[in-house]
Amino acid sequence: MKKLIIAALCALNGAFCLAQAPAQYNVPCVEYPMVDDQGRATFQLMAPNAQSVQADICDKKYPMTRDEKGLWTVTTDPLVVGFHYYFLIVDGVSVVDPGVNTFFGCGKMCGGIEIPESKEEAAYYTYDPNIAHGQVRECHYYSNEEKQMRRCFVYTPAEYENGKGKYPVLYLQHGMGEDERGWSQQGKMADIMDNLIASGKATPMIVVMDNGNCSHSFGQKKGESFADFGKSFAPVLLNDVIPYIEKTFRVKTDRESRAMAGLSWGGHQTYDIAAPNIDKFAYIGTFSGAMMNAQPILNNPDWNKKCKVLFLGTGTEEDLGSAGIHKQFVDKGIKHVWYESKGTAHEWLTWRRCFHQFVPLIFK
Amino acid sequence: MKKLIIAALCALNGAFCLAQAPAQYNVPCVEYPMVDDQGRATFQLMAPNAQSVQADICDKKYPMTRDEKGLWTVTTDPLVVGFHYYFLIVDGVSVVDPGVNTFFGCGKMCGGIEIPESKEEAAYYTYDPNIAHGQVRECHYYSNEEKQMRRCFVYTPAEYENGKGKYPVLYLQHGMGEDERGWSQQGKMADIMDNLIASGKATPMIVVMDNGNCSHSFGQKKGESFADFGKSFAPVLLNDVIPYIEKTFRVKTDRESRAMAGLSWGGHQTYDIAAPNIDKFAYIGTFSGAMMNAQPILNNPDWNKKCKVLFLGTGTEEDLGSAGIHKQFVDKGIKHVWYESKGTAHEWLTWRRCFHQFVPLIFK
Repeated sequence: MKKLIIAALCALNGAFCLAQAPAQYNVPCVEYPMVDDQGRATFQLMAPNAQSVQADICDKKYPMTRDEKGLWTVTTDPLVVGFHYYFLIVDGVSVVDPGVNTFFGCGKMCGGIEIPESKEEAAYYTYDPNIAHGQVRECHYYSNEEKQMRRCFVYTPAEYENGKGKYPVLYLQHGMGEDERGWSQQGKMADIMDNLIASGKATPMIVVMDNGNCSHSFGQKKGESFADFGKSFAPVLLNDVIPYIEKTFRVKTDRESRAMAGLSWGGHQTYDIAAPNIDKFAYIGTFSGAMMNAQPILNNPDWNKKCKVLFLGTGTEEDLGSAGIHKQFVDKGIKHVWYESKGTAHEWLTWRRCFHQFVPLIFK
Repeated sequence: MKKLIIAALCALNGAFCLAQAPAQYNVPCVEYPMVDDQGRATFQLMAPNAQSVQADICDKKYPMTRDEKGLWTVTTDPLVVGFHYYFLIVDGVSVVDPGVNTFFGCGKMCGGIEIPESKEEAAYYTYDPNIAHGQVRECHYYSNEEKQMRRCFVYTPAEYENGKGKYPVLYLQHGMGEDERGWSQQGKMADIMDNLIASGKATPMIVVMDNGNCSHSFGQKKGESFADFGKSFAPVLLNDVIPYIEKTFRVKTDRESRAMAGLSWGGHQTYDIAAPNIDKFAYIGTFSGAMMNAQPILNNPDWNKKCKVLFLGTGTEEDLGSAGIHKQFVDKGIKHVWYESKGTAHEWLTWRRCFHQFVPLIFK
């Protein structure tokens, strides 16, 4: 009955509707944060002894208001759809909202909130009970480059289990301040893959998500130079990860069965690693790629023959340089696919969309 | 040189040695918390505008001291070895230390710290680069009981991949306020299994870790009765999880190839589910089992014939009732294995040790 009344009010009231529901990543039994159908988030925190509390989301700090019991509350402006990291600031200290699950970003554990798109728009990254589902496997391996244990996550398509065939492999990287958990948690990559494979749009493939050694922001590590930031991942990927994957999983090992893609700094790493090693990777994708060096591509006279797909994607509400490189490629006649995600910024919804565009193009 | 001086000071100074190192779960580039060789943790938080900051660990609140820049610090008493959840309290608000990775416990995301044992004591749950390693797979499945998607984690032994054989299955449950992530994260179950299998002590098996529907503390959910808390997991396990696992993985499906174990409330659930269904499970383990009803065992005249291993473990620094049930079993002649973990409380080191004792006994 309550739902009916809310629905009726919504229908009557349009933009002023207050219908709201607990957000997607709240821990069990916790109501707040809530999100309303205008994309506004309402945060709450019980803090009777605090002097000030703010919500810090989408580059804006919202002062929260205290009631007589010490419960602080604020409702934000309508927020951009998709996934956002956020924090609460308690007397100047930026902390995770105790009401939500956490996600590794910004070099530390962050709160996360999803401002939902419509069911139709979100369908491609939503779990579908009527199709077969792959698995995301946590794998630990020993790195000879680093002389220590490392961790990666490996997506295997539904048909891999109990099948016999060999599969192509996409190496897929996170951004600066994130780690190997990002794509399967914030990125919803398994649901995107499952849906694409079930609909016949994507070739079943294995996706490897490793740690790009840029799990903090540049400059946090003493003595770190900009040129070297995250550079140590190249030998790890080429000499440790790829051999580990090819030894452990049923995969094809020719270059036309190997792709690399990454978001933001992972896009930078994709150019740094895959472009000079085009004999090893036939497909390359960058999603909001940051600080990319296009010279190995521009200077290679055989590029268009060797690279089967070169993909550049970006959100329309950001510019980390992809548009400039796109223009260089057009000018120099470098074949590529250019994709713009409408209305999204340097955030995970842009990267889910880029991934969803890129994956159907490869291993065809 | 610095290390040498510290080592020399340690050798001279015994109990007053200050040698300390960043704790195991710190995020990249973060030094604090640190742990010294007496098991004392030192916490730090930059909070110039806070009026009071405390560290909340092992049932004790340690007031932190502010320096002139607003950096708050405290060193704890020597702490019990093993894994502890902890929080920092900023002006009365309990929050996760921004310097560490998070773990789901207490019905929400918590900070976590490991007070290390000696290398020898910790060897059984430590990654060994010289042995083969299994995988922990995140699997999503549709629950007909709940009409929604659920998640479980499934450990497969190293030899499963690229093998052909069928494996027995252990269903392994977390405690109250925890979830399906607990055993692979806090519990280090994959390293324990890998080490036991590699040394020939355990039969290679599949381990399924699902959500026991007690991911919060009792009473948090409106209208929840004590008797019903977490009870909805029984039909999910029997009607959804087991069929999903037996359809998806290469597993043996006879009762002598099926075990169930759980810690704390998961021990309660193990008794509730496996004991009345002894035709489905031949091995039962409880680790610090809470509020267990032993009647289905005591009242079954065929129990000793049917149950191949009944294991009860507990820490010596806790009592949730396992000792009383152990006594009942002795009095009534119920065959069982009784294990006490020396010096550990109602915490994950007790459960790692119980798991390490229990696993070699089953599927033999």
